[in-house]
Amino acid sequence: MHGGVEWIVDVEGLESAAIAGEHGRSALRALFAELIAALELHPLHEPIAHVFPAPGGVTLLVALSESHLACHSYPEAGYLSLNLYTCRARPAPDWEGLVRAHLGPARVCVRTIERGERAAQPQRAR
Amino acid sequence: MHGGVEWIVDVEGLESAAIAGEHGRSALRALFAELIAALELHPLHEPIAHVFPAPGGVTLLVALSESHLACHSYPEAGYLSLNLYTCRARPAPDWEGLVRAHLGPARVCVRTIERGERAAQPQRAR
Repeated sequence: MHGGVEWIVDVEGLESAAIAGEHGRSALRALFAELIAALELHPLHEPIAHVFPAPGGVTLLVALSESHLACHSYPEAGYLSLNLYTCRARPAPDWEGLVRAHLGPARVCVRTIERGERAAQPQRAR
Repeated sequence: MHGGVEWIVDVEGLESAAIAGEHGRSALRALFAELIAALELHPLHEPIAHVFPAPGGVTLLVALSESHLACHSYPEAGYLSLNLYTCRARPAPDWEGLVRAHLGPARVCVRTIERGERAAQPQRAR
């Protein structure tokens, strides 16, 4: 099998402070660390971390043996995007629990996208 | 507006040699460079590049001011996954033309996923 699964996670209704600046970067790195441990993923390097000027959006990005993990926060909108793409099937993580544990209350929308040989049926995207 | 658009591109039927090892890495970097120039994207660092042991799959990953760009090749399957996530709306690139120019003949499947405030209607994923 090739291709795998991508989780596209949109998080809304976050407190701005939870996802902004150095505090936001630390919280998101901790979320990444827990996710990586829980799913037994293998990072190829330290995450790329970038904190943008005020209001302090944060980008974190890491290549994995299994593909990649990324997030981008928009404190001005209380919004966070998360992507996890893994080339091997594995159980879905508890996205809502992880987000709330590290970032506080939020609305979490998860979509699961199949990649590769199963992607020839785009209507199966959900 | 927050959230933006993600293009999820699955490429099949590639020649293995086109996407493997150092040659594959060079070809994929050139594809990234043309895409970045065409869409006026702003990389935050040199792309992270990783070539796996034989058969020589390649991962390229770069954070952008506009979000991120990633690819993973599977030479054993003639398959390449591409992701471009941009937080600002812009015209779709010519994915098929770009892929064929840099990697040769292929079948290219493009899905466009809306993120953020428009993601509350997952049935709109297409």
